[in-house]
Amino acid sequence: MEKNIEISFLLDFYGDMLTEKQREVIEYYYDDDLSLGEIAYNQGITRQGVRDAIKRAESSLFEMEERLGLAAKFNRMQDGLRAVLSAAEKIEEYNRNFTFSREINNCAVEIKDIVKTLCE
Amino acid sequence: MEKNIEISFLLDFYGDMLTEKQREVIEYYYDDDLSLGEIAYNQGITRQGVRDAIKRAESSLFEMEERLGLAAKFNRMQDGLRAVLSAAEKIEEYNRNFTFSREINNCAVEIKDIVKTLCE
Repeated sequence: MEKNIEISFLLDFYGDMLTEKQREVIEYYYDDDLSLGEIAYNQGITRQGVRDAIKRAESSLFEMEERLGLAAKFNRMQDGLRAVLSAAEKIEEYNRNFTFSREINNCAVEIKDIVKTLCE
Repeated sequence: MEKNIEISFLLDFYGDMLTEKQREVIEYYYDDDLSLGEIAYNQGITRQGVRDAIKRAESSLFEMEERLGLAAKFNRMQDGLRAVLSAAEKIEEYNRNFTFSREINNCAVEIKDIVKTLCE
């Protein structure tokens, strides 16, 4: 069973829609990097039971993203915000090397601050 | 039964997680603004049946937002993007009224374009 990095990302988005048991097991596996055997031991179930629970949780996460597409939407947001950040940094630099305007500098810093807050 | 404008917003986000029947009924009510009687007639169910289906759909939408909080997260993004847009417009204006730099202007326009795309 290969770990899929997309799952960690979807787990951040939709994890709270899983059943408590599914979320526990998949978080042990993806976030805490425990082995199937370790999770089986902790939960008092078989290795196969753990594997099945993880598979079911993965299917739920994929299905939610297929229906809602919110993770992809936020991904596009993050890409856009990174491009905004880079343009604001260029403005700061051009402004510094050109005829310095305090107002332009303040606005560029404001944009950078907002973007950083949104990307946290 | 009062229409809750928050529901229309949540419906955009989580509508595709509802059952087909629930989504149909709640969309008739919120998006197409049909009356309970009209929906009942269209669907061949009682007015009370429509009311119940809408109530169940509303509860599901609220519960999803309570668990995931993605609509609120997206709202914060939109607020932030509006502030970025306004700062980019100020940069354009300061730059125009100060010593004009083509590079600064281009970056400000780029930021505005990105933000507008993200807000669509």
